[in-house]
Amino acid sequence: RLKQTCKKVCFCGQFSQIKMVSNQNAIRLINTTYADQVVNIGEITLGEETRNRMKNTQGRESERRQIINAACALLNSGGGLILMLPKNDNYTLSDGLGLDIELGLRELVRPQTIQDNFTYLQVDVYTIIFVKSWSADLISSGGVKARISSIDCQAYKRCGTSTLKIAPNEFYHFFNQKKLMVGRAQGLSPKRMRINNSQDKMLKVVKNFCNQKNIKISEAVEFGESEYTEFKSFEGRNLQTRLGENLVKYISAFGNTNGGFFITGIDDKTKKVVGCGKGIDPEFFKILMENTFKKLITIHFDNCSSQRSVEYNLHIINVIDDLETRHGYVMALEVKKHCCVIFSKNPESFKIEGGCVLGVWVCLCESCGGLAPCPGLVPALCPVLAGIGPIQKQQYTKHTTFLNISFCVVKSEGIESIPAPLCSRLFEKFERFDDNLKPNGEQGVLIFSKSWAVDIEMEKNDNVICDALLFCTNSFPVLYTVVEKATEELLEYSRQTAYQIKQKLVNVGGYSDWICVIPKLFELPSRTVISSETNCPGFKLKNQYPEDYRIFDVKAILRSLVLVMLSFKSPLSDQLGCEFLNLLTIEQFEILNSKCNIEDFSSMFVHGLPGTGKTVIAEMLIRRIQRTFHCRPEEVLYICENQPLRDYMR
Amino acid sequence: RLKQTCKKVCFCGQFSQIKMVSNQNAIRLINTTYADQVVNIGEITLGEETRNRMKNTQGRESERRQIINAACALLNSGGGLILMLPKNDNYTLSDGLGLDIELGLRELVRPQTIQDNFTYLQVDVYTIIFVKSWSADLISSGGVKARISSIDCQAYKRCGTSTLKIAPNEFYHFFNQKKLMVGRAQGLSPKRMRINNSQDKMLKVVKNFCNQKNIKISEAVEFGESEYTEFKSFEGRNLQTRLGENLVKYISAFGNTNGGFFITGIDDKTKKVVGCGKGIDPEFFKILMENTFKKLITIHFDNCSSQRSVEYNLHIINVIDDLETRHGYVMALEVKKHCCVIFSKNPESFKIEGGCVLGVWVCLCESCGGLAPCPGLVPALCPVLAGIGPIQKQQYTKHTTFLNISFCVVKSEGIESIPAPLCSRLFEKFERFDDNLKPNGEQGVLIFSKSWAVDIEMEKNDNVICDALLFCTNSFPVLYTVVEKATEELLEYSRQTAYQIKQKLVNVGGYSDWICVIPKLFELPSRTVISSETNCPGFKLKNQYPEDYRIFDVKAILRSLVLVMLSFKSPLSDQLGCEFLNLLTIEQFEILNSKCNIEDFSSMFVHGLPGTGKTVIAEMLIRRIQRTFHCRPEEVLYICENQPLRDYMR
Ligand SMILES: [Zn+2]
Ligand SMILES: [Zn+2]
Repeated sequence: RLKQTCKKVCFCGQFSQIKMVSNQNAIRLINTTYADQVVNIGEITLGEETRNRMKNTQGRESERRQIINAACALLNSGGGLILMLPKNDNYTLSDGLGLDIELGLRELVRPQTIQDNFTYLQVDVYTIIFVKSWSADLISSGGVKARISSIDCQAYKRCGTSTLKIAPNEFYHFFNQKKLMVGRAQGLSPKRMRINNSQDKMLKVVKNFCNQKNIKISEAVEFGESEYTEFKSFEGRNLQTRLGENLVKYISAFGNTNGGFFITGIDDKTKKVVGCGKGIDPEFFKILMENTFKKLITIHFDNCSSQRSVEYNLHIINVIDDLETRHGYVMALEVKKHCCVIFSKNPESFKIEGGCVLGVWVCLCESCGGLAPCPGLVPALCPVLAGIGPIQKQQYTKHTTFLNISFCVVKSEGIESIPAPLCSRLFEKFERFDDNLKPNGEQGVLIFSKSWAVDIEMEKNDNVICDALLFCTNSFPVLYTVVEKATEELLEYSRQTAYQIKQKLVNVGGYSDWICVIPKLFELPSRTVISSETNCPGFKLKNQYPEDYRIFDVKAILRSLVLVMLSFKSPLSDQLGCEFLNLLTIEQFEILNSKCNIEDFSSMFVHGLPGTGKTVIAEMLIRRIQRTFHCRPEEVLYICENQPLRDYMR
Repeated sequence: RLKQTCKKVCFCGQFSQIKMVSNQNAIRLINTTYADQVVNIGEITLGEETRNRMKNTQGRESERRQIINAACALLNSGGGLILMLPKNDNYTLSDGLGLDIELGLRELVRPQTIQDNFTYLQVDVYTIIFVKSWSADLISSGGVKARISSIDCQAYKRCGTSTLKIAPNEFYHFFNQKKLMVGRAQGLSPKRMRINNSQDKMLKVVKNFCNQKNIKISEAVEFGESEYTEFKSFEGRNLQTRLGENLVKYISAFGNTNGGFFITGIDDKTKKVVGCGKGIDPEFFKILMENTFKKLITIHFDNCSSQRSVEYNLHIINVIDDLETRHGYVMALEVKKHCCVIFSKNPESFKIEGGCVLGVWVCLCESCGGLAPCPGLVPALCPVLAGIGPIQKQQYTKHTTFLNISFCVVKSEGIESIPAPLCSRLFEKFERFDDNLKPNGEQGVLIFSKSWAVDIEMEKNDNVICDALLFCTNSFPVLYTVVEKATEELLEYSRQTAYQIKQKLVNVGGYSDWICVIPKLFELPSRTVISSETNCPGFKLKNQYPEDYRIFDVKAILRSLVLVMLSFKSPLSDQLGCEFLNLLTIEQFEILNSKCNIEDFSSMFVHGLPGTGKTVIAEMLIRRIQRTFHCRPEEVLYICENQPLRDYMR
């Protein structure tokens, strides 16, 4: 029933290794009028009072888990909607969702608050949770917030004499520190590593203890619980179950910290030997250990050269009394410090992939701190993501005017139509119509494109005259798809385009505020606006967003949009099995942008020194041509000396 | 008994506003042979078992608080030692400190672990907690970790329908987000602010409710608890006390989030009116409110232009039954969203100042993200603190060779003596003695200076021939003060210098690993090393550090040392009432460095264009001359056109 795939994904310069667990029972996304990801949970009991009165606690927990899993998946996948049909007819939002659900949501987004990432609305008969993407809020967090929200990391650490589960919001910090240590430890000799252990003396006492064959019952041991030692005494009955549960936890804790001894059969209060597993064959412990370590889930960082499995020593000491009668054993498991990370179970997190809410086994494998290591990066654009200082801001603004999306276009009054050259050509053919699209009294920008779909790597629809994106403060973002005659198919095409734009703004552009794009058709001859709200082919549902989605800062959206426009998937991506986010240089973009009317020219020469990016431009142009003219690979004649490139393009 | 002072401190580019609460009972630092800050707690009960058996719970808590306060102060002030004399004679470290103490330490350093910042050692009769500075671990945290550890922030926020106290480790994130919002909200019209509130409709219902004069008992209200509303019903008895306690908490929570209503006299389960304060004069509520808001502790960010006090509306509704009999009141307090931060009480944190552990009232007022805004900054040195990329590393290494502290000097074998020019002059006068100082088989550097004390802005001692700092991997750092004849006074001078070097490496250089500097005298004629361990004038205590203090990475120390050498206090500091950390440019440093033998030259011309830093060099030189020749201000003849500068120098 379970299918596992493994791949690497680069998310805003942040690498993650993801093992996808696809379950046939996975919740599927549904199609609605929303240009957004919509998870339908179905019927559910809502409201603090009503949920408290539920007798079926298992059913309540299963409802809660569905919502939390969906919320986690949407947080990790660009945001979206959770559709719920309250079982109780007279439910209103003022009854609350239920404290158990709220607590689950709270844990997902700590240290943020619930209202930072979730907002609610009742639309038709549904109660909807709107989820904002758990994207890197780079400005406030300096880029160190984990890019992936998780429900349970299933990893432990030692902190003094305690064993702590690593909280989801501490996981990224923990991972980063571990990785840093792997890097530091790489060049060191084993001698150097050993000496650093300041508890050497104490550990010698423990080791001597472990190497005994027999020990007297009720004898007190000479060492106590510490970072490196944990005592547990188990009753005879459920030894195997309880030992098994505790083992993975303490192996993870000791292995993830500085190593140590997990010792059963000693009372932790009195430090006296009590013994455990009386009458059991000592082989039992050996087999249990072998099975436990075989099943252990560990990951190695990419900078880890050892890639060893977890090392351990098992000591079984006979517990005897003065008459040499046996009273079970003291089992001492020494777990060596592991180079990377040990989990007690599969970490729990969710993601949307292939239209499903899927469980993912997540580990951030490399943190590159912003976009720095991507080879084709425009230096002036780095600060976009990195919290711009005053000097860089200036430089950045200067460099982005080439896109015609300079920030000065957001005037204090009125709405500017851009990009200007395309507009003038459009308004030559068709009588000026941009004023029809501009709402009165707002300020912002209306950005025209020959086809926004092609710009963001979708197939071009020939019935589309042009697209216009409207960003005004205090309004919802709108995509106007300008057509001759509105059809349901075009409406759906516009919705898909709007959805892609929204996803790219969040996932590629790093936009971190609430964002939606509402698709609308603009019939040019009749000059009428048709919205999908009035005419929906899929799931019946009004298209309504909470007020939070109104644009707060147009410039912030434009910054993200610039990144979306300049980014492209590198050929390297497929070779490495991960997505490399590259950015075009300004010169490259200018060449491409000047050829936005692909239909109008038949040949083009690009010349430049080796390594300046001619191939990238060629690739981008070919992709554009493919998308614009709907070419099948065999319909394109490539004349190319570079055979691997030709094969790649095909 | 309490004295309050208020000033601004810049710590590695991070501004904090600190109100110091100096208490005459404050714990004072003691003088020992350690070149470190030592807090003496005195007699104390230690060990998990023994502490659990303590009957005097108040005494136990007071002991715990002493340790936690001292630990917090040392974390915030460059690290140091906590000296404890265990009351129980047979105490050993393997008994643990006691879980209550451990939990307190754990909360101070989350999400780090106890062993990252605390380590223990028994020296003589004492048990010592060694505390590593809670300095910015910039590499792993990207510079966003709070620079100040605190015990309790005393600030609240709303998260969904709950009120949460902000945990110390979430405080910095919370502050940063608030400050960001202040910046964003500044330019917005009130209209824009209001519209953003998506819960407008619901709030209208609440407001209508509040504007009633009378309400029937047992009537259910039309709204429930939400982010914006909290119901509390109090029994008649302790109304004043309990209301007072709850008020500050909810005012802080609502004011710090998005505002809201705190309503008493309604049952939160049934939403039915029950009334409170039966028979009380309604004036009581008004007076209570006035007093509460008067005492409220709020701070404003420096980018806040409104600087308003907390706004509120108090509504008192009479609760009546069908016969119009009174049943007390419903009190609804509307707290408006506050521009900055509201505390329920004074936040608790500690710092060492003037040799005392002092309570501080801390608020980080500006986060400049690294060193960026400091005007005199060497760009090539920024990456030192910011987690160096491979390209910057190269550039940086190139620029720092001028210090003769290029990183290549740390050879895989042996110890290099630097700075080379000074060495050769020294070894002309005195027969080569550096080999006496170098331990065998180690690798590292031995850095000579005419006087390390003068380099780090202490007075020069004329009996000191030179100083040499020894940094070897796997050893403790040592400061050798080279003298003709060892005296107790010189030993103390060496200890003071070593202490200053250690403090500067942490506080200015941003060194974040365990660090100590062990002072030693080197008698040149007899070629003997005298350490303070054997001959201590102050508190009797062996000078012994845990193994953690052995150097792990010499280059990391050198990076911090470079920053210490290049930094100087700007004249701006005093004008602004805060310390500005400036760095010399490379050219400035070269001029200064070439004149390290101040005694040997009588005049110097520095020429350059206006603004290139001639004054800074002049100032630095004059300070050096003052420190070297022990000049009193009136002994220096300043010929200066710039009168304010002359007055400043005096
Ligand atoms: Zn590894
Ligand atoms: Zn303010």
